[in-house]
Amino acid sequence: MAEKLVVVGGDAAGMSAASQARRHRDAGDLEIVAFERGHYTSYSACGIPYWVGGLVDDADQLVSRDPATFREDFQVDVRVRHEVVGIDLARREVVARDLEHGGREVRERFDQLVYAAGAVPATPDWARTDAAGVFGVQTMDDGAALIDWLDGDPAPRRAVVVGGGYIGVEMAEAMIQRGLSVSLVERSPEPMSTVDPDMGALVRKALCGLGLEVRSGVSVTGLESRDGRVAAVVTEHGTLPADIVVLGLGVRPNTALAAEAGLPIGPTGGIRVDLRMRVMDTPGVWAAGDCVESVHRVSGQPVYVPLGTHANKQGRIAGINIGGGYATFAGIVGTAVTRVCDLEVGRTGLREAEAAAAGFEFVTVRVESTNRAGYFPGAKPMTVKLIVERRSGRLLGAQIVGLSEAAKRIDVLAVALWNRMTVDEMANLDLGYAPPYAPVWDPVLVAARKAVEAIR
Amino acid sequence: MAEKLVVVGGDAAGMSAASQARRHRDAGDLEIVAFERGHYTSYSACGIPYWVGGLVDDADQLVSRDPATFREDFQVDVRVRHEVVGIDLARREVVARDLEHGGREVRERFDQLVYAAGAVPATPDWARTDAAGVFGVQTMDDGAALIDWLDGDPAPRRAVVVGGGYIGVEMAEAMIQRGLSVSLVERSPEPMSTVDPDMGALVRKALCGLGLEVRSGVSVTGLESRDGRVAAVVTEHGTLPADIVVLGLGVRPNTALAAEAGLPIGPTGGIRVDLRMRVMDTPGVWAAGDCVESVHRVSGQPVYVPLGTHANKQGRIAGINIGGGYATFAGIVGTAVTRVCDLEVGRTGLREAEAAAAGFEFVTVRVESTNRAGYFPGAKPMTVKLIVERRSGRLLGAQIVGLSEAAKRIDVLAVALWNRMTVDEMANLDLGYAPPYAPVWDPVLVAARKAVEAIR
Repeated sequence: MAEKLVVVGGDAAGMSAASQARRHRDAGDLEIVAFERGHYTSYSACGIPYWVGGLVDDADQLVSRDPATFREDFQVDVRVRHEVVGIDLARREVVARDLEHGGREVRERFDQLVYAAGAVPATPDWARTDAAGVFGVQTMDDGAALIDWLDGDPAPRRAVVVGGGYIGVEMAEAMIQRGLSVSLVERSPEPMSTVDPDMGALVRKALCGLGLEVRSGVSVTGLESRDGRVAAVVTEHGTLPADIVVLGLGVRPNTALAAEAGLPIGPTGGIRVDLRMRVMDTPGVWAAGDCVESVHRVSGQPVYVPLGTHANKQGRIAGINIGGGYATFAGIVGTAVTRVCDLEVGRTGLREAEAAAAGFEFVTVRVESTNRAGYFPGAKPMTVKLIVERRSGRLLGAQIVGLSEAAKRIDVLAVALWNRMTVDEMANLDLGYAPPYAPVWDPVLVAARKAVEAIR
Repeated sequence: MAEKLVVVGGDAAGMSAASQARRHRDAGDLEIVAFERGHYTSYSACGIPYWVGGLVDDADQLVSRDPATFREDFQVDVRVRHEVVGIDLARREVVARDLEHGGREVRERFDQLVYAAGAVPATPDWARTDAAGVFGVQTMDDGAALIDWLDGDPAPRRAVVVGGGYIGVEMAEAMIQRGLSVSLVERSPEPMSTVDPDMGALVRKALCGLGLEVRSGVSVTGLESRDGRVAAVVTEHGTLPADIVVLGLGVRPNTALAAEAGLPIGPTGGIRVDLRMRVMDTPGVWAAGDCVESVHRVSGQPVYVPLGTHANKQGRIAGINIGGGYATFAGIVGTAVTRVCDLEVGRTGLREAEAAAAGFEFVTVRVESTNRAGYFPGAKPMTVKLIVERRSGRLLGAQIVGLSEAAKRIDVLAVALWNRMTVDEMANLDLGYAPPYAPVWDPVLVAARKAVEAIR
């Protein structure tokens, strides 16, 4: 009789695990059942702001593989609109509810379990409301509901986005593109607090240039509603009228069921897994994606970094191992990139505050350069910041803000971090040079040179 | 009395050395004299094709520091239009000729010498001609002469570019932009032989799309002239009429004077230097730039790679050491990028033929991906090829050809190579992901994944 794999969560991590397991073991050897609460599988949640903003026409474009494809091409029994409500490790059984059939209970026995339940949006008390017009941006269903509201009658004109991280700024831009007047409220002194405040200030300027009202250093205290519809966001510093409110306050691991079942939860709130994505001390149970914690290769500490790129890798690794192969997840270095109108933002490694918290003593350098040779048409400014361990010269973190061909340069620094390079070595790196692509000293090299002088 | 530094060659390597030495030692401590045969100092020879093509208006834009700046801001006694004709190591003396004053002899004593005489174009016998209209593209003076000819009367209409490397394809494109009809003749089976033929074939297609006639696998045997002007290029396979001929046949180290003086020449024809850019076994003499050989970090072999990026680094390192500091040149990994119309080409490490010559056993993989998430506007195709050592999985080389945001991705692979990463590790790399910048699996990761499977 075939072994049975049950997957909880049908997005990137869960379905990568399912498809990799299938690649290595056929349906006669491994039966696969996947439960997904929503309507969609394997979609790009990161694409939702572009769908809302109209750069992407159609939700289907964000779906890399739909349930029918998984059923037909991968022999994965995908059950969308099924919410898992219990995991019984002793009986090796998952309990789900079929949301399309009145919540009818479904039970499924498993030999192997992949827990990939993702994340839940952080929702502070003030955001708990029955008023319509308040949206998270986490799932495709969230995106669809938000677009319905934007297209509804009366059409909203004033948007308030709460939270100035990646999703917040991307959604603010999307709403500008839809013709709304938009305010962005962020508790930290500068938006984009995934970079240091000096770099965040550059992002704020770009956002203001968009016609966006940025209120940073401001906390939200409540919402006002009228006739069952949201009407305003109340802050410490006044009330902002709003016909639509978008919450981009980050997420936390969706571990309620996991904790109930007794899976080990780490200090970040994510599930603890080993290198092969096996849940620690829990035979036959795997976890991957936005519900697990990872190791930060620079600090050595566990961290919670919910990003599609990690979810895909981790799911794939779980699936290879379930399939009888061998693969390990080597941890993360904290790389992330985003685009805010014409501004590109990249970061990797530790921010100043993170480096200090990890116990590092460090120096920072910041340089201004250009994406292309200064004389080449289209040359645009770029700021590169490095955070470097004192004495050793080891790179600890880097941030880039620039107008063109800037963000992905962070990858060079991410690979340098990954390999524990010092800025002395980095100043020697053999990077591509041609006038359309870089000055003869690439901005990364200019920054490394300056850091070499700073650590002396 | 101040020590005296004499620099032979006033371009990137020589003037980087001079300015770094000056940063560390003032004029009272170190007198600096620099001889340059041409009219310009510290210019971007790589920018010449863009000047010819009209993307860059003005030669001065290609000059990063002119002689007056060096004299005034750096107290470097720059003598342009001075050709060094002899180096006497025993007497510690350089002999130069002042080309503006009938070749008047000038002698300069030195304590330290930087030999940075650059490269000389490869000129086969058939290219030695008295006919006008035949140009190299190595110096600013070459560029100026070529532009004069293009602007002359009668205006040339048919160009033949001989040599399909970086300079050849860039010059071919420039001439198309000037409205000429252009043929490119290349001896190898495909143009751009710095990448493997399968990748070069992609470049050939792009060149043909430009309206360029590409004749690859064809050797030139001679030139024809009429009334003192070039009239045609004769090949094994027919004669190509030409009003202008551009030679892009590569360069060799300009070491005639160095060899005469007894400086050690390595197997590549370049000057042998140590890590600090001291000429081997020759106290007080340094060399840098297109006249030296470097160590390839992948093969471990000496190589000759004349590129501005290395020249700048090497000159700077020589200058720091002359200045009393400490810096070393860690070798190269063979990174290069170029643009051919809309096509971007990047390479790093060893090509297949180079890997075989170095003694490696390897596998290759090639993947097709896109620069952005497939659904994101502006997503364009990209081909990534990896060359990977059998068994160990160590990356040996990589090549990228793509339509947008492709070439500089080679830097990620260059840093991976630099750190001797295996494809197993690379498949785990934490690279930036956001829909405007990459698919959730960056093309580099897709290639690494495929390579992991190929070496099993």
